[in-house]
Formats: sequence, C-alpha cells, structure tokens
Amino acid sequence: MKSIVIKAERLRKFCEETFQRLGFNKKDSTIISDVIILSDLFGIDSHGINRLKMYIQQLHSGYIDIRSQPEIVFQTPVSAVIDGKKGMGQLVSRFAMNIAIEKAKISGVAMVTVRNSNHYGIAGYYSLMASNEGMIGISMTNSLAAVVPTHGKDPMLGTNPIAFSFPATSHPFLFDSATSVVSVGKIEVYDQLSKPIPLGWGLNSEGFDESNPKEVLKSIFSGASGLHPLGGGSEEMGSHKGYGFSMIVEILSSIISLGTTSNHVEEKEGEAGVCHFFMVIDPKIFGNSAAIQRHFENYLNEIRNSSKSNDQNRIYTHGEKEAESFLRRKADGLVLSDKTLGDLRKIADEAGLDFGSYC
Amino acid sequence: MKSIVIKAERLRKFCEETFQRLGFNKKDSTIISDVIILSDLFGIDSHGINRLKMYIQQLHSGYIDIRSQPEIVFQTPVSAVIDGKKGMGQLVSRFAMNIAIEKAKISGVAMVTVRNSNHYGIAGYYSLMASNEGMIGISMTNSLAAVVPTHGKDPMLGTNPIAFSFPATSHPFLFDSATSVVSVGKIEVYDQLSKPIPLGWGLNSEGFDESNPKEVLKSIFSGASGLHPLGGGSEEMGSHKGYGFSMIVEILSSIISLGTTSNHVEEKEGEAGVCHFFMVIDPKIFGNSAAIQRHFENYLNEIRNSSKSNDQNRIYTHGEKEAESFLRRKADGLVLSDKTLGDLRKIADEAGLDFGSYC
Repeated sequence: MKSIVIKAERLRKFCEETFQRLGFNKKDSTIISDVIILSDLFGIDSHGINRLKMYIQQLHSGYIDIRSQPEIVFQTPVSAVIDGKKGMGQLVSRFAMNIAIEKAKISGVAMVTVRNSNHYGIAGYYSLMASNEGMIGISMTNSLAAVVPTHGKDPMLGTNPIAFSFPATSHPFLFDSATSVVSVGKIEVYDQLSKPIPLGWGLNSEGFDESNPKEVLKSIFSGASGLHPLGGGSEEMGSHKGYGFSMIVEILSSIISLGTTSNHVEEKEGEAGVCHFFMVIDPKIFGNSAAIQRHFENYLNEIRNSSKSNDQNRIYTHGEKEAESFLRRKADGLVLSDKTLGDLRKIADEAGLDFGSYC
Repeated sequence: MKSIVIKAERLRKFCEETFQRLGFNKKDSTIISDVIILSDLFGIDSHGINRLKMYIQQLHSGYIDIRSQPEIVFQTPVSAVIDGKKGMGQLVSRFAMNIAIEKAKISGVAMVTVRNSNHYGIAGYYSLMASNEGMIGISMTNSLAAVVPTHGKDPMLGTNPIAFSFPATSHPFLFDSATSVVSVGKIEVYDQLSKPIPLGWGLNSEGFDESNPKEVLKSIFSGASGLHPLGGGSEEMGSHKGYGFSMIVEILSSIISLGTTSNHVEEKEGEAGVCHFFMVIDPKIFGNSAAIQRHFENYLNEIRNSSKSNDQNRIYTHGEKEAESFLRRKADGLVLSDKTLGDLRKIADEAGLDFGSYC
C-alpha cells in the first residue's frame, strides 16, 4: 500500500457513512465527521481521521454509548454542569458549547463544565464555534493521564489542551495547545525516524529523563511514567508553569464538574470519564466591540511585522498556520499515510463500505 | 553595610510611612504596603520591598498620579472596563478586583479589564482577594515589553503573569506565574553569580540565543531584544505555547480594555499605560461548592502523594511554597540584601524618616 491523496469532502463522506454504519444517526455522524476533518484540514494530523480507529475501539469497549443524551444537571444564567452520559465526546461537547453560546448571548458570559464524556478531538473546534458568532471562545479537556507533575514520576495529568479563540477579520486568532511540552504523537514521529528526543520531553519507566523515544513511549503506554509539562522537567525552564496551566484545565473540567480527574480516566471498566470545559465571552460586555477588533488587528500586524530573530523570516500569530493549511488542504486534498490508509481500508471492510469508491 | 533581618510588621510600617510622606493618604499607603510585604512574605523577593525604589522613580517621572481616582467607563452586571487614570497600580487593581468580587457575588461570574494603570506588584495578591471570599480568582497584567514572540527579535509582549487561585482548606491553591520562561530578576541572579544562563532564556541585542547573562540584560534594558516565552526559543520545546499564553493576557488586559499593548507601555512621556484583567467565579454556580472543594483537596493529596521522579523527594502543589514561606518569614523576619538595604536607607533619608528606628 502507498500513501494517497484524497479530497477532504470525500473523506468526510466516508467518515459520515462509517459512523452511520456504526449506529449513529445522520445528524450526529455529520457533527463527529466535521470535527475530525477540520483537524486534518488544519494540519493537526494527530487528531484527525487517524483517530477513527481509536473511536471505534472506544465504542466497542463500552466507553462510548451511542444512544445516550447529555443531561444538564445544574444551571444558572451564566453556567451549566453537564453529565455527558458516556456520549461521543464531539456530540457532548457541541451540545455543551451551544449552551454556553446561547447563555453568553443573553448574559454576556457563560461557563459550561462537563463530566462523564469521551475524547472530543481538537479543542479549537469548539472555541471556534463561539468565534464564528463574534465571541471569544475557550475550550479545555482533561484526558487519560500521560503527564507528570513537576518532580513527579506518576502520570497525574492529561495532556490537557487549552484553546482560546478571538474573532478577527480574515480568520480568528486561535491558540490551541496541549499543556504538555509535546504531544505523544510527536514522540512517535521521532521514534519512526529513529531520532533521539531532547531531554525534557519525557521520562522512562524508572522516572529518569530519557532521550530514547521508544523508552518514553513504553513508559507512557504502560502508565509507568509520562511526558513533562510545558517547560520540561526542571523549574529552571519553567516546568512548574506548564504544570500550573494543566492544573487550571483540571480544575475547570474535572474538579468543578465533580468528574473524573485525569489520573482516574479509563480506570473503570466501560467508562472513560473524560471532562471538558467551555466558556464564551461576548466582547460587547466591554463596550465597543468593533473598536476592540480593530485594536487587536493592529497589534497582530505589529507583531507579524516586527523584527525576526536570527535565521527566521516569519513571525506567526496563532491561527495563521491553521487558516493557511485549511485553504491549501481544501484545494490539494489530504495525504493519508500508509498506516492510516491501512486502518481505513480495514474499517471500511468491517463496516461493509468500499473505501476505494471514496478515493 | 551588611544584610539584615527585619520583622515584616516593622518593614510594613516603614513602607506605609514612606508612602504617606510621598503624598498618599493612610488608607492607600496601607493597601500598597500590603501588596508589597505579601510578596516578600511569599518569598517572591523580585516583587517586594526591593521595588520601592522603582515605584518612587515612577512617581517622579509622572507615570503615577497620586491624586487620581480610577473610573468605571463601561459596565454590565458581569463586566466592567476601568480607566486607571494613571493611578498607583495596587490601588487601581484593588478597586477593580473589588468590583469583580461584588459583581460575582450577584451574577456568579464577573470580569474587569483595566487600562491606563501602573505596575501592580504580584498578580496573586488580587486573585487571593477572591479566594479569601470562597471564590475562584484570576488576575493578569501586561507590562513593559521584555518578551519576544516565537521567532521574533523585538520585545512585543510583557512578562505577562497569570494568577489563578482556588479556595482550599489550609491555604488556597495559588498559581502565579509569568508567561516568559524566566523573570528578568532570575537573569540578574545568574549575572551576580557570574554563571552562564541556559540557552532558551533570552536573546542578545543581535537577536541570537545567548548564554551570557550580561548580554541578555543589556539587550532587555536597551529594548533591543528580550526574554523568550515559556517554552524557550524554538517550537521544539513549546515556545509558541508560552507565546500563546502571553497573548491571552494581552487580549484580556490591553485589547478588550482598548488600552496600551505591552510594546507601547512607557512609550509616551509621563504615562506607563499598564493594563490588567481580573475575573471572579463563584463555585456555587456549578452546584455543591463544598463537594467541589472536597473533590479538589482529594486530587491535590493524590498528586502530593504520588511517586517522585529520580532524586526528588517532594511534589509541590501550587501555593504550598508561598504558604510555607509566609509562616516562616512571618516568624523569622525578612532578610534585606545589601543592595536593598542601601536603597531603603536612601529612601528613608529623602523622606525624612530614620530607617534605623524600624529595624
């Protein structure tokens, strides 16, 4: 098998039909596929179609309940607590973010915390739902523990991403980032290239800082240890800062929802327990939102046009890479690696679909 | 002159009387001194009494207007925009955080953004005002630009700290951290020890990563270049992540307040233009706040008791170091370095006070 290029719309169609064959209705299959394909279009390959296999495994293992409906268990005009009822993370999260958006339209700001959900894909999808309506969107999630606290050996935190988006003219400002120093996927890339990883990325199973990617991956997948927070393993480079940002995600997702903290995610049989947090702020609560947007655009342009450091020829502002990737990949199609292609053919076979007919 | 130890209460008294001699009333002098001395008690020496000299300079240069009153220029039940009117940062910020607290008590959540203020001391002082009332407190500030964006040479961002505190039983969870990889103060410490700094902390005046602390300090103070964001200078260690967190601070302080972005702070004569952001969340808007607190305490204990990495014997949760330093320094007194002691004697002389009488 060789890697192939496929149009995003064709891949989305395959994805939708796969989810329908798995038992989701058409509307839900469309939502899930939207989140997945946006990740591929944004260039975030680690959270796109290559996760289809994982989602199907989680359906089979009982983490995901196809027929459940998320439930609002507590709410005020500015907040809601949602029980995800083991629903598909993308569906629970879209439901939750829509509540935050509706409440923010009335109250000016709203926060929704979610327990008992599942992996929700890219954090930025949900923050963008708010930005597309002219509002500031924030999205966070905890996850299966893979990150150690500063000076720790046990994984006690998820990679706990934070997305923050702010409406701007051509495309929104979009910061979407794990609070770990790198993603697990990045270590896998180094492993495939047989390249040593920098010290400060992760620990081996004995709790030592490690440059062999294989040892770090073994340590993560066995649960023996894990990745360092943003800032690495020592306070010298700010490990306690990344650990702090990760704690904020944990507080706003698993703590205030009375949900499952990352160190207990996927601990119970048939229950992942992933928790999310969504927040929406209407910039109108700070006065002249058009003036705010112009002020922001001006600052972004000042940053882009400021002097570059040695050997660099461009300063990106957050969201530019995603916007450029989106246009490019929309036109040129998505490249599927050999491994992903193999997975998709197998998934198609099992679902009774002909993968070739989508290419 | 030799370094001396002084009781916090005596130093606070000196600080209060100095501000009164400078023209502040008794109430305002007490507030400013509270913020300053708390920093010393917390062990954050870079933001305590050693800053007295800087504040006096800023009074003389016209950045700080003693007699001005902050003004609410826009508000809703969940928000306010405040013009600091060049007031002392601590006074403007206490005023702003009190508004956020009062609004959050009624609405469940509130955000206050501030423009045209001055250096406010430690971010955590203000977030703790909310936690002391049983609520989540968030505090951020921009500052004179000293941090480059990823791949940039010009300082376009302040060290832009974020403080987040959450009520807990013995002392609050308190995360208070600059979004730069280190503080300017830390580089000064290495310089005094004639020790090379790790690559990834800052750039020299030519925009190259630099290990000589002198060169980086020269570059910062001349405005030629500056510190790296948390994550260092390359995307490999997550530079774009620290840069993103710094941008969030900028958006919530200088952008939505229509204030001065860090790259223009202290640009106009007689005006600093520093901007802040404060947010308060009442955990009751998520249901059972007592259960939330128990759930959080349990997680903090799980983290503290989890396995340590090689050579480490303790995992701290955020706020523990500050709480322990507070008790220790309250009992043992504060150590003033030779340099600070010299500054304080000079300040006392100029104010017509006898520094020896406070020791």
